[in-house]
Amino acid sequence: MRAAILRQGDIVVDTLPDPVPVAGQVVVKSLACGICGSDLHAHKHGHRMVDVSHRIGGRQPMDLGRDIVFGHEFCAELLDHGPGTLRKLKPGTRVCSVPVVPTGEGPRTVGYSNEFPGGFAERMVLSEALLLEVPNGLSAEHAALTEPLAVGIHAVEKAMPKGDEVPLVIGCGPVGLAVIAALKLKKLGPVIAADFSPTRRALAERMGADIVVNPAETSPYRTWMDKAVIDPAAAKMAGSLIGMPQAWKPAMVFECVGVPGMLQQVFEGVPRGARIVVVGVCMELDRLEPMFGISKELNLQFVLGYTPEEFARALHLIAEGEVDAGALITGKVGVDGVKDAFEQLGNPERHTKILVEPWR
Amino acid sequence: MRAAILRQGDIVVDTLPDPVPVAGQVVVKSLACGICGSDLHAHKHGHRMVDVSHRIGGRQPMDLGRDIVFGHEFCAELLDHGPGTLRKLKPGTRVCSVPVVPTGEGPRTVGYSNEFPGGFAERMVLSEALLLEVPNGLSAEHAALTEPLAVGIHAVEKAMPKGDEVPLVIGCGPVGLAVIAALKLKKLGPVIAADFSPTRRALAERMGADIVVNPAETSPYRTWMDKAVIDPAAAKMAGSLIGMPQAWKPAMVFECVGVPGMLQQVFEGVPRGARIVVVGVCMELDRLEPMFGISKELNLQFVLGYTPEEFARALHLIAEGEVDAGALITGKVGVDGVKDAFEQLGNPERHTKILVEPWR
Repeated sequence: MRAAILRQGDIVVDTLPDPVPVAGQVVVKSLACGICGSDLHAHKHGHRMVDVSHRIGGRQPMDLGRDIVFGHEFCAELLDHGPGTLRKLKPGTRVCSVPVVPTGEGPRTVGYSNEFPGGFAERMVLSEALLLEVPNGLSAEHAALTEPLAVGIHAVEKAMPKGDEVPLVIGCGPVGLAVIAALKLKKLGPVIAADFSPTRRALAERMGADIVVNPAETSPYRTWMDKAVIDPAAAKMAGSLIGMPQAWKPAMVFECVGVPGMLQQVFEGVPRGARIVVVGVCMELDRLEPMFGISKELNLQFVLGYTPEEFARALHLIAEGEVDAGALITGKVGVDGVKDAFEQLGNPERHTKILVEPWR
Repeated sequence: MRAAILRQGDIVVDTLPDPVPVAGQVVVKSLACGICGSDLHAHKHGHRMVDVSHRIGGRQPMDLGRDIVFGHEFCAELLDHGPGTLRKLKPGTRVCSVPVVPTGEGPRTVGYSNEFPGGFAERMVLSEALLLEVPNGLSAEHAALTEPLAVGIHAVEKAMPKGDEVPLVIGCGPVGLAVIAALKLKKLGPVIAADFSPTRRALAERMGADIVVNPAETSPYRTWMDKAVIDPAAAKMAGSLIGMPQAWKPAMVFECVGVPGMLQQVFEGVPRGARIVVVGVCMELDRLEPMFGISKELNLQFVLGYTPEEFARALHLIAEGEVDAGALITGKVGVDGVKDAFEQLGNPERHTKILVEPWR
C-alpha cells in the first residue's frame, strides 16, 4: 500500500506491505484522515516525544529508527474481517474508531506506533470491538472530524461546569475550535475566544464564540472581566484581578495553545479561583511561578484524549448537524501532499485542518 | 513597645511606638506567636515576595525600606477597645484572629505590612469584628497553632475528598503535619506521609499518619501504590503508573515542601488521575514538563490560607483536644531570641514550631 511515512525524521511516500489483521481485528481503507498538531510536533520533535513517553512509562513508545505512519483522526471503509471476529458490520461500511488497538502487550496507538500504521496510508488494521458505524449519509470528511471534536467534548467534561461559568478559550486552532463547539453544545456562555489570527477568530465565531478578541489589541482577561462581572461596584472596589471574586461569575479558562510560557501567561491573566483546563499539548520544558497559582488559588486540570463514550457522542453530534465540522476543513491532499501540508499548516491564515485522502 | 523587627533585611530588636487603634479596632498584647516558614522566606527573599505581590496585584505589598514586624500565627490578650467598637469582649479576654485588618484601602495582612505589626511585638491592633474568644482553659501557646492548623484544614477542604481517596503527604514540616491532622479529622486514610527527617516522621505518626516513608530509602509513590491497590492482578498487568487507574483507589497528594523542582517530582511520581494539592509555598520560578500532567490527566489545586469559618473550626478542634497541637512546639523565645530562632528553624531534626512570647 502507498503511505506517507515518517522515515529517519523526514516525510516520504513509499509502498509498505498491507497490514494483516490478527484475531479480533479488521482491515480498513482510510477514506479521510486529519493532520493533527501532535503529528506536526512528532515530526519535528519525535525524539523528545519518545523520551517523555519512556519516562512517563505509558504505552509502548515509537521506535523512530523504523517507519511510522501518522494519522489518528480517520474515517475508514471496512474491507475485510480478520480471524476471530463477530462480523457484525459488512464490508463497505464506513467506520470511525478511537485510534487504539488492544494487544496482548497492552494498548497501542494507531498512528503513533511502528506496528499500527495510521490513516496516512491506504490501509489500516483496527480492533473490531472499537468500530463505530458512521451514521448513514455523513460524509467521510466530516466523520474524520470526530476525533478532534471528541477532544473538545472531553476538555469541557473535565472542566465539570456547573452552568454559571463564563468560559474563555485561549487559542483558536483546531483544539480551541473544538472546545468552543463543545461549550456551545452544553449551552455555556457567553464564550469568549482569543486568537491573533483573523481567520481563526472568524472560525471561532462560526463555531459559536460569542465574543472574539485579538490579544494584540485587547487583553482577553480584561474582556473576560467586563463580560463576567456581576457586581460592577464590587468589581471596581476590588481594584485588582484577585480581590472580591464574588463580583464576577466563575472563570473557566481553556488553554489551547500548548507552547512554553502559555501557562505562566494564563496564571498571570486569570482571575482568582479560576479553573484552567490545559488542552494544548506542550511537549517541552515549561517555566512558571507557582506564587500566581497560590495567590489566586487556581485549579489546573490537564486533559488528554477522550473516553470511548465521548468519542461516540462526537460522531453522532456531527452526524446530527449539531456541529459545523466542515467549517474546519481548509484542504485535502493525497499521500503525496502530506509533506507539503505539514509545512502549510504552520500558517493559521491559510489552514486549519487538512485532510489526507490516501486513495487519491 | 519592644519588637523583633525586619529592618533593612536584618532581624533587630528595638522599641517601636505602641500601635493606636482606630474605628472598629482593638489593641491586644501578643501572648504567643508562631514563626512560619513564610516568615523565614520573607526574611531571606523579601524583595522577591514584594515583586510577586506587585505583579499579582493583590493586597498592598510591604515596603522593605521601612520597618516590618512579622507574626501572623498569634494568640493575644485583649487590652483595650478603640473608638466605634461594640465591646462585646472584656479586656483580659484571650483572643485569636485571622491575621487581616480591613481598612478603607482594602484588607491588610497583620505581620506582612508596614502598618500592622504582627505578633513578634508586644502589642498589635486587630479588627474587633474578627476576634474569636479562645475557649476557656486553652493555653495561649496551643491557641497560637490555630492558624497553621487552619491551613491544613483548608487544604483538605479544597481537595474535595469523597472519602475513598488514599492521601499521600509529601513533606512533614508544620504545613504537612497540619494536613495530616486535618486528614485524620475527616477520617481519611490510610494516610501516607514522607519526609527525610526521622524527627518529622515521628511527628507525622504522632499527628496520625498511618504509614511514614523515608524517601531516601523508599519511593513514597511506590508505597502509595502498594497501599492503595484494589485489584493486585490488574495493577500487575498495568505494568506502569499510568495504566489501568481502576486498579487503585483515587490518589490525593499534598505537596507540602514548596521548593523549585518539587512539582515536577510529584508529576513524575503520582499515578494517573491524581489530584495534587499544592500547599507548600514556592516563591521562586519553577520548571516542569506539562506532558507528565497531560499524559496522566492530573489535577493541580493551588491553595492559600483558609476561610474565617475554617479558622474558627481549627481553634475549636484544638480546644476540644481533637488535635495534638502541642506536639509541634519545639521551642519558645522572647523577641531577643527571634533572630536566632530563624536560623535554628533550618534544622528539621531540632525544631518544628518555635513560638515567640514577646512579654518574656
